[in-house]
Amino acid sequence: MTTTLAERTTTATTPSLDSLLLWFEIHQLNERYCAALDNDRLEEWTTLFTEDCLYEIVPRENADLGLPIGLIHCTNQRMLRDRVVSLRHASIYEDHSCRHMTSGLVLAPHGDGSVQAESSYVVVQTRTNGESFVYQAGRYLDRIVRTPAGWRYAQRRVVYDTSRVITLLATPI
Amino acid sequence: MTTTLAERTTTATTPSLDSLLLWFEIHQLNERYCAALDNDRLEEWTTLFTEDCLYEIVPRENADLGLPIGLIHCTNQRMLRDRVVSLRHASIYEDHSCRHMTSGLVLAPHGDGSVQAESSYVVVQTRTNGESFVYQAGRYLDRIVRTPAGWRYAQRRVVYDTSRVITLLATPI
Amino acid sequence: MTTTLAERTTTATTPSLDSLLLWFEIHQLNERYCAALDNDRLEEWTTLFTEDCLYEIVPRENADLGLPIGLIHCTNQRMLRDRVVSLRHASIYEDHSCRHMTSGLVLAPHGDGSVQAESSYVVVQTRTNGESFVYQAGRYLDRIVRTPAGWRYAQRRVVYDTSRVITLLATPI
Repeated sequence: MTTTLAERTTTATTPSLDSLLLWFEIHQLNERYCAALDNDRLEEWTTLFTEDCLYEIVPRENADLGLPIGLIHCTNQRMLRDRVVSLRHASIYEDHSCRHMTSGLVLAPHGDGSVQAESSYVVVQTRTNGESFVYQAGRYLDRIVRTPAGWRYAQRRVVYDTSRVITLLATPI
Repeated sequence: MTTTLAERTTTATTPSLDSLLLWFEIHQLNERYCAALDNDRLEEWTTLFTEDCLYEIVPRENADLGLPIGLIHCTNQRMLRDRVVSLRHASIYEDHSCRHMTSGLVLAPHGDGSVQAESSYVVVQTRTNGESFVYQAGRYLDRIVRTPAGWRYAQRRVVYDTSRVITLLATPI
Repeated sequence: MTTTLAERTTTATTPSLDSLLLWFEIHQLNERYCAALDNDRLEEWTTLFTEDCLYEIVPRENADLGLPIGLIHCTNQRMLRDRVVSLRHASIYEDHSCRHMTSGLVLAPHGDGSVQAESSYVVVQTRTNGESFVYQAGRYLDRIVRTPAGWRYAQRRVVYDTSRVITLLATPI
């Protein structure tokens, strides 16, 4: 799938204003995603997905083998909202702060109006002891659709490289 | 305040060319900011602020409590230039190099023509022993105004998550 | 040279649509570069350079002294392709994954149609033990030219801050 994405975008060498505007809108969605998670606005984070979204966090080995088991596997937005409620009750978000960095965003528009996207991410975490460190690195594999409220994630698969990951109560990445 | 910023931007789902151009200009300012600090052009860095700017670096706990005490508290551009002179004399900048990564830029234009902005940052430092590591993570809270010379920071508050921070002679973040 | 670049861009305070489009095209090239390296598409990575390109990775001390010796010194695209073949045979790329983060992109268009660019980078690596860490930080110094296939690197000099770098079989940065 990634090869196809690369091939599709290789030919797009002279971007028009249309492709710039598309990129900008998708980029803004990704930036709002980072801003919501980094600034403890988890409720806003759930609104960036469609109602029937797929959101999952899977280790790279599973993704390579096509195995669906991962840290998080949500098949609609309500499951995301339930998770946020759980996280609020567990007070996980008071104990650390996260900073999401992203790069390498490559887009492939599809005939049905949706957009396939991939990007790299690095999450830096600061725990209560005050030290900041690289918590996780990986890639986002997205299918993004236009809704009346703007572009939203119909699918966001978070595939992480790092295997030393806390699995007790997984937080969104 | 952050909730307000989120609410204001939530409605902006169909960006026009105007919002793209505004984003681009603010983004360019932020990129020049990173480039100036990362490439030891501290004198250029001071010119990215207005004459009567506020620039401060405060720990997250203080920012949450509204306490003004921080690592750096400068209330005009001259104080920034004085600090650069001090840093040059102390030869701090020969001893390490920094790379500023940013993400999650969200803008809210105000009626008076200024722009409120927030973004996440991660600073990676390399010391003389040659190791690179995450030095600091946090967020920028900005008020940016248009001047004859272009967009400039009227206010940049650097709120850091990391509490293990060197306080002897604070360098700009 | 960096001072000149800073001076050139200081005057560009009111970006037109032209400068936005130029920035977008160069940014897209940089993003494809990161995406190719991060997702193990090394063959695609070589196609982002001109046939007679210069690609080198040099430590900061050498760059400051004007010394040409570095980890990698390739003077055309064929040498890049040869290196990729070597890396594939050595199976280095199965053993780790990389995430390239960049920031601080500043451009200076030249009269001959080429563009001089600088940016900061941080590479996060995950080894087989599953830990993610900052592997390398530094800056890119580029000369980028327009070709029939789109913008390509005529020159990319990778100047790294980190001196604790693996030199046995250098991978592209």
